[in-house]
Amino acid sequence: MENLSSLLGKYGEEGDKLLFRILNSGDFLSAAGDDDLLKRETGRLSSLICEKGLRYDLTVPFARYVVQHRDEIVFPFKRYQIQPVWRADRPQKGRYREFFQCDVDVIGSDSLLNEFELIKIIDEVFSRLDINTVIKINNRKILSGLAEMSGESDRITDITIAIDKIDKIGFDAVIEELKGKGVSASAIGKLRPVLNLTGNTNAKLKKLEDILASSETGMKGISELRTLVGYIDKFSLNSAFELDLTLARGLNYYTGAIIEVKSKDVNIGSICGGGRYDDLTGIFGMQGVSGVGVSFGADRIYDVLMHLNRFETLKAHGQSVMVVNFGDKELDYNLKILDVIHKLGISAEIYPEPAKIKKQMAYADSKKITYVLIAGEDEITYNQVTIKNMQTGEQVKTGLMELASFFK
Amino acid sequence: MENLSSLLGKYGEEGDKLLFRILNSGDFLSAAGDDDLLKRETGRLSSLICEKGLRYDLTVPFARYVVQHRDEIVFPFKRYQIQPVWRADRPQKGRYREFFQCDVDVIGSDSLLNEFELIKIIDEVFSRLDINTVIKINNRKILSGLAEMSGESDRITDITIAIDKIDKIGFDAVIEELKGKGVSASAIGKLRPVLNLTGNTNAKLKKLEDILASSETGMKGISELRTLVGYIDKFSLNSAFELDLTLARGLNYYTGAIIEVKSKDVNIGSICGGGRYDDLTGIFGMQGVSGVGVSFGADRIYDVLMHLNRFETLKAHGQSVMVVNFGDKELDYNLKILDVIHKLGISAEIYPEPAKIKKQMAYADSKKITYVLIAGEDEITYNQVTIKNMQTGEQVKTGLMELASFFK
Repeated sequence: MENLSSLLGKYGEEGDKLLFRILNSGDFLSAAGDDDLLKRETGRLSSLICEKGLRYDLTVPFARYVVQHRDEIVFPFKRYQIQPVWRADRPQKGRYREFFQCDVDVIGSDSLLNEFELIKIIDEVFSRLDINTVIKINNRKILSGLAEMSGESDRITDITIAIDKIDKIGFDAVIEELKGKGVSASAIGKLRPVLNLTGNTNAKLKKLEDILASSETGMKGISELRTLVGYIDKFSLNSAFELDLTLARGLNYYTGAIIEVKSKDVNIGSICGGGRYDDLTGIFGMQGVSGVGVSFGADRIYDVLMHLNRFETLKAHGQSVMVVNFGDKELDYNLKILDVIHKLGISAEIYPEPAKIKKQMAYADSKKITYVLIAGEDEITYNQVTIKNMQTGEQVKTGLMELASFFK
Repeated sequence: MENLSSLLGKYGEEGDKLLFRILNSGDFLSAAGDDDLLKRETGRLSSLICEKGLRYDLTVPFARYVVQHRDEIVFPFKRYQIQPVWRADRPQKGRYREFFQCDVDVIGSDSLLNEFELIKIIDEVFSRLDINTVIKINNRKILSGLAEMSGESDRITDITIAIDKIDKIGFDAVIEELKGKGVSASAIGKLRPVLNLTGNTNAKLKKLEDILASSETGMKGISELRTLVGYIDKFSLNSAFELDLTLARGLNYYTGAIIEVKSKDVNIGSICGGGRYDDLTGIFGMQGVSGVGVSFGADRIYDVLMHLNRFETLKAHGQSVMVVNFGDKELDYNLKILDVIHKLGISAEIYPEPAKIKKQMAYADSKKITYVLIAGEDEITYNQVTIKNMQTGEQVKTGLMELASFFK
């Protein structure tokens, strides 16, 4: 949780509405007069009865932390953070009220090497998770340059918000929205070809250079992108990587690179995203500190893995063992077996009661146990154990001393 | 978060007060009439404007989950869960408003093998963390037997709550509290020697057997403890292990084993605790399912590790590398070095800007980097790299091809 004062006004009007507020403890009405209550102005009243709220993301609390601990922190400051965040939204596919974000940020350095490092981290994370992704990048300065070039500099927010929807509502609907917002026909005429640019990254940058030649900001954005692409070109990524000029991301605080990652196999929106924010700590009174960061959406990544059936595969690859429970007389021997398997680092359990073998086997079966170890009176007499492979049904008998080497 | 209806009434009156409530979204006053508002009955009003609350622990939400998914779950059901919980308490040393619990439970089995498994898990966790602990156990049935034997069966809760404070307020204050609660002098006379029992576990159990001979419940508790101690005696634990008849734990729902773990070196209360609850799911309408579980307090464990200076030691043992940034001309070569180190799985970074060497070294120093790698014009010419050991100040030059073997 955070103080509501740290959260309010940081995510736009819509964001304020999506904040969960926590009722003050004890006599929560003490600051509210009868008049306040009867007026029923929920916005004002909620601020009288709630001082704390649940985190909406990890970036703003991080900025609060950096400002609060500025004297103890060594800059450039790098941190990762994995925590739940909450949004008072209607839950639906890929959208949760409570979900985990995994953030990586570098604050206090302008260098584009930071963007490069983050992209390498993204590439490594999704390579290890074996998810096919495309990493899309853009630069907010290019979007600013485009607004400038089209003669609508003061409309940069409207233009950005509209462009951001191309993926969801399509190109034509975005053009309609721009018209509706009062963006001039001539400006739209200038924007249209840019959003339709084709070719590889270098070809796109080349064309953009002609279009944005007169915009200093735009040219700065192109140069930043060229440098970043240059770094990336020298190291091969496993993920696909592309410049997407329609990538805007709603959040107002981005000022440079914009990054977004999508799964190629599962359609669930972005599973990681971020960018550079030149003045995030400014809202807490610490000016001129530039940062860049990305946030992985753990729950959506989990959804992707579920959809790809990856947990089943993991289970099938991992070994797990159940030791049959024959009762008190055989228990010492069977606990010794369990201990041998545990010491090998293999997930193992003994069935907790001396139930009928059939029941114990059914349990092992429904839990997809890979091996069941059986040691009754016979096995114990000869210091042996029967190993049943639950997939093939095959049974072998081995000496207790050989058990470890069987599982190694 | 959970529905408040799942949480209220589960943790006693005190617990209800410590629940954080979340204000309903939108028009949160819609269910409250003007009268409700003006009456200012905060208890009633909060239930009209808040439907959700923050988890107070993981056990009750787990019980809710088990009942909700009873048809999909294979029993005995084992699960672990690591999540934050919240209490509207005054924050102080070892007591936080927001903290992480790590729970392990087995539900749907009466077998004492489950208690044994949990104690082995506790022992392994603290062995790996290298924290000296004492695992204390008791059995709620023995406490019931004692109340019975003293003729105060209906006072079991008062007696338990008082006994639970021996560690904090001392033996004499507990006797005073019992008197204050109206427990008879003769009952106190009978309890006094039991709470003062000395000797090893088996000696204590022997004496208890005489004292509790007439209490069926008490004898059941002794027999359960004997079985559990029997399992433990066969496998050596790293932690100290003791029967503590003064261990009661406040929570009402325990019915069998009670477990509590303390650090021997740092005085911060219990860092892990739990026990058996025979009917936790009963509160959600699913009767007769017995469970047993323990909860590790991650933040207190962190406090213990901090107090023991373990993170400093970890840092000193772990290798970390910084590559000096000489600027654009040398960048390719230096990024290649960084890549070699990363691929070895070693934590490494390049200083993000070509700042003065002195500044870069100061950064490495304050971050306690173990090795700084230096490759300027000279090194690059001869395909070399200079390795500076930041602890000894020693510098060696090695070929780029030999870099990996140096760090291996």
